Amino acid sequence: MKILGSTLTPIAFADPPLLNVMGVHEPYALRSVLQVQCEDGIVGLGESYGDAPFLEQVARALPALIGLDAFDLPAIRAAVSRALGRAVVTDAHGLIGGFSADKTLASVYSMIEVAALDAQGKALHTPVVELLGGRARDRVDFSAYLFYKYAAHADGRTDPWGAALDADGLVEQARRMIDVYGFGSIKVKGGVFAPEVECEGIEALAAAFPGRPLRLDPNAGWTPATSINVASRLEGVLEYLEDPTPGQDGMAQVAAHAPMPLATNMCVVSFADIPQAVRQNSVQVILSDHHFWGGLRDTLALGTLTETFGLGLSMHSNSHLGISLAAMVHVAAATRQLTYACDTHWPWKDTDIVEPGVLEFRNGSVAVPTAPGLGVSLDLDALARAHETYQSCGQTRRDDVTYMRRFVPDFTPNTARW
Amino acid sequence: MKILGSTLTPIAFADPPLLNVMGVHEPYALRSVLQVQCEDGIVGLGESYGDAPFLEQVARALPALIGLDAFDLPAIRAAVSRALGRAVVTDAHGLIGGFSADKTLASVYSMIEVAALDAQGKALHTPVVELLGGRARDRVDFSAYLFYKYAAHADGRTDPWGAALDADGLVEQARRMIDVYGFGSIKVKGGVFAPEVECEGIEALAAAFPGRPLRLDPNAGWTPATSINVASRLEGVLEYLEDPTPGQDGMAQVAAHAPMPLATNMCVVSFADIPQAVRQNSVQVILSDHHFWGGLRDTLALGTLTETFGLGLSMHSNSHLGISLAAMVHVAAATRQLTYACDTHWPWKDTDIVEPGVLEFRNGSVAVPTAPGLGVSLDLDALARAHETYQSCGQTRRDDVTYMRRFVPDFTPNTARW
Repeated sequence: MKILGSTLTPIAFADPPLLNVMGVHEPYALRSVLQVQCEDGIVGLGESYGDAPFLEQVARALPALIGLDAFDLPAIRAAVSRALGRAVVTDAHGLIGGFSADKTLASVYSMIEVAALDAQGKALHTPVVELLGGRARDRVDFSAYLFYKYAAHADGRTDPWGAALDADGLVEQARRMIDVYGFGSIKVKGGVFAPEVECEGIEALAAAFPGRPLRLDPNAGWTPATSINVASRLEGVLEYLEDPTPGQDGMAQVAAHAPMPLATNMCVVSFADIPQAVRQNSVQVILSDHHFWGGLRDTLALGTLTETFGLGLSMHSNSHLGISLAAMVHVAAATRQLTYACDTHWPWKDTDIVEPGVLEFRNGSVAVPTAPGLGVSLDLDALARAHETYQSCGQTRRDDVTYMRRFVPDFTPNTARW
Repeated sequence: MKILGSTLTPIAFADPPLLNVMGVHEPYALRSVLQVQCEDGIVGLGESYGDAPFLEQVARALPALIGLDAFDLPAIRAAVSRALGRAVVTDAHGLIGGFSADKTLASVYSMIEVAALDAQGKALHTPVVELLGGRARDRVDFSAYLFYKYAAHADGRTDPWGAALDADGLVEQARRMIDVYGFGSIKVKGGVFAPEVECEGIEALAAAFPGRPLRLDPNAGWTPATSINVASRLEGVLEYLEDPTPGQDGMAQVAAHAPMPLATNMCVVSFADIPQAVRQNSVQVILSDHHFWGGLRDTLALGTLTETFGLGLSMHSNSHLGISLAAMVHVAAATRQLTYACDTHWPWKDTDIVEPGVLEFRNGSVAVPTAPGLGVSLDLDALARAHETYQSCGQTRRDDVTYMRRFVPDFTPNTARW
């Protein structure tokens, strides 16, 4: 099934003012949608980051796909690698660790691989999960993803969620999110306030939702010593503590004392990082993310790796729309070694570019789509609108820091601040 | 695609008197063929060991498949696991390391997984290699697999290869095998004669076939000290030294001094063995084998693991026929991390149970079959004949030791003898 061409569409959608270690989410989240046109009218879909440096690399790779077989993933990967050379995207699409040529290749290839797998599934009339080895589960569990947040953006634009700037705000946000989506576990994005304040937030959630697994992710906002103190205080409360401190050396120091597993999507972000992780026991849970782990097939293989070394496996999320969620659900369903509910930013968006009805949350989980390929259909009108939003919003890369200074003029990132 | 039933057929085929650390190959090699009948008349094929203890476990698992979806590999694996409980096959199908319930499950499931993947490919009209992620290569390289051997079996039955009991015999065998198959590299099964004799054999091959990669595999016939001496003597001659000594501790001792990589299919034979291998640097090359690594998908994932830890990846072989070769070729073709030519016993057999014409060696390599599924067709008459041979041959399990005593009455296995 020859690839005839491709279309890359940058899009933007409204994002609430969610706080994190780097500042606050800007008014719009950037993403991009890839359509890969194949023979027989088959179009494969992919979704990934939307910042300009990433788009530039994808645009460099796409011409190399023309004439390749959409089933020939090794040839596609080799073509992408040749097109990129040793290019490195050094822009932060999200808080997902360091930059390298290998990681750039992994992220660009991933978007294309997902589109190729969608096309393969459509050609074979079979869901992507079957191409990945079948369903280890019929539904994929997700976690409520709580954020400290402002009530309004700098321009006054509000959202339905209101402010959440203390423990009461978190509990209210959690209650509402669980009411609507049914999530069985809760993650809090920390690194925003002093650790003791965030501990109070977690303790309030533990009291309000007894028995529900809790996670705290300060995005490396703390020193190792602070991390050890927090870990000790939250013993028996957290199912895992995510990226308390920067780097594997620091994480290993914390892990030696923490009573709960440490998780990461910042210091072990590629296969190349795993040997050190094994040597140092720096992390006990890896958050996969097909967008930067090299696609669905490599993300699946990561499961074999984590199981081999007795590591847990969860899944990371950036702000995303329906094509990404569908891909996340297919690979999570196929991964028998997945040991935790996955992250998703799904509740924070107010729009999508896929036709509604397929990706519905029930009891915090999403059923694996059963239609061929990823099982979602692109809403071309919605895509056009989201592209117009991209063109008019004025954002071309993510910069939570500068935007935060509209709220806190002397703000600097909180990395290892406490 | 529901599984409606299955047929397991033990078979036997003539095997030459090939020598190894455990003695000599008996007159017949035992295998078994699995046919999994699915809806729409689709039949998936698998091939694996033929010894009675293995057949017994497969037979226990097969009834659990009925009614399952041939695409639902996780459900198939779970059903096999439930059927086997913690059963352990402790019989040696070959020199492939220790026994465990997990390895028993991996080997029984593998045979069934291959048949399910063959059926999936047939249902989707696509070769198995596509289901595994596409061709990293169009042809798979194999190595000439030389054996010291007797000219005739105990009953006087000869074979076309004649004796090979010294360096000249090995060189003659190699020349003939390379003439017919075109192999670009050479492996010698050692552990038969004293190490200095086997070194002479390797040195004679190096002189006769300059530039051709050479391997020596004494199946753990030596002590660590002897292994280090041999490794030193064969520096610059061997591309790798395979299983010189038993166990990971011993291999690690040797690896600390050996100038070439050490390979294994005896001491790292499951994912559970890998953490120790990484910790001790006991081996530098793993020989995969889908028959005991849990099927084609897990074998594929092994490539991600070896690449992550900077290990080489080759492929092990036992005596086998065409269904196994087809499966080996599909998974090897899909594994981009494969770094060496694969082993095969192919030249040593004089018959097959698949229709001829698909699996042809040219320049030592086999093209990936392009027909749906594994791309090979069962020859039902040949299968019936091979089953008759099984019934009449009187062998029900492999026992090279006892048979060797027909030639050398006081023989005991050579494991760590030298």
